[in-house]
Amino acid sequence: MKIEKRWIISFIIIGIVSVTGLLWPEAIETPEILSQFGTTEQIVPADVAWLLTASCLVLLMTPGLSFFYGGMVGKKNVISTMLQSFVCLGVVCLLWVTVGFSLAFGEPIGFNIGDGFYSIIGNPASFPFFDHVNVLPHNKMASTIPFILFALFQMKFAVITPAIITGSFAERVRFISYLLFICLFTLLIYAPLCHAVWHPNGILGTYFGVKDFAGGTVVHMSAGFAALAGALVLGKRKNSKHIPTNIPFVLLGTGMLWFGWFGFNAGSALAANGTAAMAFATTTTASAAAMLTWVFFDRLHGRKVSALGACIGAVVGLVAITPAAGFITIPQSMFFGFITAIVSNKVLYSKAMKKIDDTLDVFACHGVGGIMGMILTAIFAQGENASLVNGGWNVFGHHMMALVLVSAFTFLGSLLLFKVTNFFIPLRVSEESENIGLDISQHDETLDPHKDAALHNPMLELIKVSDSNVS
Amino acid sequence: MKIEKRWIISFIIIGIVSVTGLLWPEAIETPEILSQFGTTEQIVPADVAWLLTASCLVLLMTPGLSFFYGGMVGKKNVISTMLQSFVCLGVVCLLWVTVGFSLAFGEPIGFNIGDGFYSIIGNPASFPFFDHVNVLPHNKMASTIPFILFALFQMKFAVITPAIITGSFAERVRFISYLLFICLFTLLIYAPLCHAVWHPNGILGTYFGVKDFAGGTVVHMSAGFAALAGALVLGKRKNSKHIPTNIPFVLLGTGMLWFGWFGFNAGSALAANGTAAMAFATTTTASAAAMLTWVFFDRLHGRKVSALGACIGAVVGLVAITPAAGFITIPQSMFFGFITAIVSNKVLYSKAMKKIDDTLDVFACHGVGGIMGMILTAIFAQGENASLVNGGWNVFGHHMMALVLVSAFTFLGSLLLFKVTNFFIPLRVSEESENIGLDISQHDETLDPHKDAALHNPMLELIKVSDSNVS
Amino acid sequence: MKIEKRWIISFIIIGIVSVTGLLWPEAIETPEILSQFGTTEQIVPADVAWLLTASCLVLLMTPGLSFFYGGMVGKKNVISTMLQSFVCLGVVCLLWVTVGFSLAFGEPIGFNIGDGFYSIIGNPASFPFFDHVNVLPHNKMASTIPFILFALFQMKFAVITPAIITGSFAERVRFISYLLFICLFTLLIYAPLCHAVWHPNGILGTYFGVKDFAGGTVVHMSAGFAALAGALVLGKRKNSKHIPTNIPFVLLGTGMLWFGWFGFNAGSALAANGTAAMAFATTTTASAAAMLTWVFFDRLHGRKVSALGACIGAVVGLVAITPAAGFITIPQSMFFGFITAIVSNKVLYSKAMKKIDDTLDVFACHGVGGIMGMILTAIFAQGENASLVNGGWNVFGHHMMALVLVSAFTFLGSLLLFKVTNFFIPLRVSEESENIGLDISQHDETLDPHKDAALHNPMLELIKVSDSNVS
Repeated sequence: MKIEKRWIISFIIIGIVSVTGLLWPEAIETPEILSQFGTTEQIVPADVAWLLTASCLVLLMTPGLSFFYGGMVGKKNVISTMLQSFVCLGVVCLLWVTVGFSLAFGEPIGFNIGDGFYSIIGNPASFPFFDHVNVLPHNKMASTIPFILFALFQMKFAVITPAIITGSFAERVRFISYLLFICLFTLLIYAPLCHAVWHPNGILGTYFGVKDFAGGTVVHMSAGFAALAGALVLGKRKNSKHIPTNIPFVLLGTGMLWFGWFGFNAGSALAANGTAAMAFATTTTASAAAMLTWVFFDRLHGRKVSALGACIGAVVGLVAITPAAGFITIPQSMFFGFITAIVSNKVLYSKAMKKIDDTLDVFACHGVGGIMGMILTAIFAQGENASLVNGGWNVFGHHMMALVLVSAFTFLGSLLLFKVTNFFIPLRVSEESENIGLDISQHDETLDPHKDAALHNPMLELIKVSDSNVS
Repeated sequence: MKIEKRWIISFIIIGIVSVTGLLWPEAIETPEILSQFGTTEQIVPADVAWLLTASCLVLLMTPGLSFFYGGMVGKKNVISTMLQSFVCLGVVCLLWVTVGFSLAFGEPIGFNIGDGFYSIIGNPASFPFFDHVNVLPHNKMASTIPFILFALFQMKFAVITPAIITGSFAERVRFISYLLFICLFTLLIYAPLCHAVWHPNGILGTYFGVKDFAGGTVVHMSAGFAALAGALVLGKRKNSKHIPTNIPFVLLGTGMLWFGWFGFNAGSALAANGTAAMAFATTTTASAAAMLTWVFFDRLHGRKVSALGACIGAVVGLVAITPAAGFITIPQSMFFGFITAIVSNKVLYSKAMKKIDDTLDVFACHGVGGIMGMILTAIFAQGENASLVNGGWNVFGHHMMALVLVSAFTFLGSLLLFKVTNFFIPLRVSEESENIGLDISQHDETLDPHKDAALHNPMLELIKVSDSNVS
Repeated sequence: MKIEKRWIISFIIIGIVSVTGLLWPEAIETPEILSQFGTTEQIVPADVAWLLTASCLVLLMTPGLSFFYGGMVGKKNVISTMLQSFVCLGVVCLLWVTVGFSLAFGEPIGFNIGDGFYSIIGNPASFPFFDHVNVLPHNKMASTIPFILFALFQMKFAVITPAIITGSFAERVRFISYLLFICLFTLLIYAPLCHAVWHPNGILGTYFGVKDFAGGTVVHMSAGFAALAGALVLGKRKNSKHIPTNIPFVLLGTGMLWFGWFGFNAGSALAANGTAAMAFATTTTASAAAMLTWVFFDRLHGRKVSALGACIGAVVGLVAITPAAGFITIPQSMFFGFITAIVSNKVLYSKAMKKIDDTLDVFACHGVGGIMGMILTAIFAQGENASLVNGGWNVFGHHMMALVLVSAFTFLGSLLLFKVTNFFIPLRVSEESENIGLDISQHDETLDPHKDAALHNPMLELIKVSDSNVS
């Protein structure tokens, strides 16, 4: 059997990265570098305890997402959809260590506007292979926990973002093309955006004053727009009508996501303090309000109250509150969930979205949820001049400009990356593979070996014959 | 299609709550109120770290419960059963913020007996929309963590209690009636009971000296008796014979419950200290002993050792240890698990219980487990005069009186609330809906679209025809 | 119906243990004993917070493993395979409290070599029924957390080890024999090995200088070799050809294992500090590298990239990094994952392994992963003379001797225990039971009541007839 060159290259890349890791020399800690870091005395053990926990929680969101998505697709594509999320734990993790974290949080590269210095990307040579990313805390980024813990917490965010995108092109994407795309996306869309919003010198965070407590803009808007681009580039499925295969999986995924989201949002306080507790609270209430709003709103439109609706509503609420979690009051957070659920539901069932085959409604949920969160945050964030209702007209205006910029950057950027990917390896599987389903055509795996699936695959046929145990 | 008024009202309620939240004025912190609260210096970050974690863990118990229950019911009712648990995360959460927490932990309303003041309910005007529930710690309730964190931790307990009840009337309850019932239950049964046991002035905790470390009485006895009332009011299912649909789901649910229960019990120490560690230990051992006792006891009665038995046994052990977790020794905890498993198993298979169709044996597990835990705690709790074996005849007697009071209050109260609910909206679905199964009749969802289910539902029929992907 | 005596004995044992627990007198804290313990002032609350969390996480690994394994076996053996993991939470927990912990961490029993005292087992009379295992921290073992928390954290390791073994003899082991075996294994293999490696006087840790950060040797090598012995003693299945029943379960299990492994590895720092964060990091990267290496390596050998491969790869990476987690750099950790995935993959598909019916490839994953981890740790551990590349020829040599010793002890010891077990109760089920599948033959439970399963079981037949609800 001939193995395509692309797989050999993939293996070689992993090999090179691993061997380079082995031979990687210890980084030299120059005084200049050391001056960026504090001492171990600065470390607050309780913050370490909470951030270790929060990082675990955020990691679990990616398997959680794989169930949230996997349960919704058709029976022939469950495993492939799940694997697409899951594999991000491998790919993005290694990318992040080797160069991604440097791009996102490395020495700022940018320009001056007036007196201010505004950066758009980190220097890839700052923390290659996690050089200098060690037990000492970084004074500017997270001064009470080891820098490595900050880098890991951020890693989990980078991991889940491309995983969110997968929902839009499920059931028709080629696995290897997808792997290429997430590499490009992580390095060229996610890392710069993360830098621009969260690095102390990042242009969106400083010049535009974008407030993004836990990633509404960085994670959800970027994923939502990339999803939209993906659905457009890949085109419609041959057969897009089917009911979700496994609603309990969707419920499980939602539970895991919700559980993990507390790490995501409350962990973003980077400390075990009151802000973390407040973020925890707003996260809970926004999600609760959105869940109920979604199912009742569904009912008013003639759809029954459903578990699927409750799950999607809850996730939409979680998305909406993410940028605002630590900036608003608890009563306000319920409104965040309420209004975002309505808007998101309206978009999801709109005629415009029906023209696009965004398989699992990623744009309507994460894109719209992220946009709503960003707007609402700019309207309601607490603090003098912090938002529209607190006298911050200027802040609001800048936020809206940033919204347009981010939307354009993530959508057009992703569109370009999908086209580039498609140029090298076709993004879409063959029609035959699509008919068979990606589980078998891409991975030789199936939920249901003894039904129609077997008809298409001689290997499974073989197993069928020899295997009385599964019958 | 005509939408019933009840759904419009439901949506309007969510809307009013959310908009009220938006417009809710910042609470005025009078000196009198501020005097109840400490300063941020009092906050112990490590306690915050652990309570954040514990609250996450308890949240996960509700999805866990949905799998524990969902796996046990018949195939046509899995999704509906799961949703009944899941939706509590929405309903009870909002109730808790708006008024539930005030009822449970607000300014005590009660009366004097001799020199003592004993309260029976909190003032609903104390913390409406979480007024004053903020980052400062409350001196009397949890002096080392933000009050908001205490309120959230307690919220998760309030969420899971009605979810536990659902097991008794699974496969025949109308969803909207159920929603109404859990609102009534939370406000009129759970909140007062919680207040009476856990508020510093609560009559059960002070006058009767009820010891309930983590909710054996508040959560499990109340849920158990409400379950019994529910099964009686709703009556028997048309067809109650079937084997559990998905035992792996039951195992998953048990794993999630056990995992979450550590947050429940060890979190109830409200600090990252030795008591938390001891509660963790007793929780582990009681559950382990009960699991093994249950399966061996089953075997002695001619039933095979089963995964279902192991799961139920483990949960019964967890229930039994809950009120005692921080009050007894580790060797004693094994006996708690052992004896409760036997009693609970005996009740479950008793002739008396067979007359009642408590679908998933909620009373036998949570009711009996809670009662056993309350009695055993009154017998064995450590400390001078703390319990029967430590010379506390008086304590024991009061505990037993409290047991009777709580049983009567929760059973009769729930019975009344079920009747009231039934008066407004019939609790039980139509016979046809029951035959079709609640998944389709209530939610238009199914685990198995291509079998008999589709026969009853034209929408699914439609999907079936157009969908070759799921075939 | 006649109940076999073995079940009566099992129940009696649980009863005796529980009643003994009830009557167990409080331990007398002599000055000699107290001198081993510090004061509560020593306790670092943040370390307590993290270790409570880590212990919860490690507990969840056992249900996680039940899904990892359960999803891989044939349809007739899913529940039984899951229960075999799950029941360890009961059996090993009680064993650990009564005597296991004493054997592992009790007063050292050993001999002198030159000036040094080297112990091989703990005194079973040191901490029976967790005597002296209380809130005070032990000065030598974990000086900043309550000793009870250390004992619980260690308990979770003891629980998962026999659960790992189950994968090798799945689909043919008798449940009661299995219970007997895990008791013997825990007391006679696990506890001594744990003592020899981790007790401050243990011979492997001190004399041989074995570095095992989080259990690569203690947990994974021992389980791997026991698995090999088990597969040999039980012999091949009648029918070993079938495809995994439920890949999503495998993904879920892997997610839970990965999540829990952070508690396993980062918790092994026994503190919320920089070492914990570093261990967290190396755990993440090793697993990521191994996951990708495995699937690409599979592809180069003509197998498709599969979800199953990704899961096995990730777990192999986690195994490989376990002994080294806190001792190596992050770039090195990627190489650990890379090279171990290749070796493990090679062994798994080797001709030698095909001769043995190790159902779920436990030896190839955990055994080989553990061996590789142990060797690599001895080559690369940081610190002067700490390993081969740091000038520690001597250390390396001792490590290799220890490797041989541990392999021989765990393999031959397990072989003997399997033979002993087999002598008392046959390990293998009857041929008929094997054909029916263990779910029904051992537990009267099934994933699929309405298919062939029912043909073999009159009880299920009965249910089938009376139950139209599941149809």
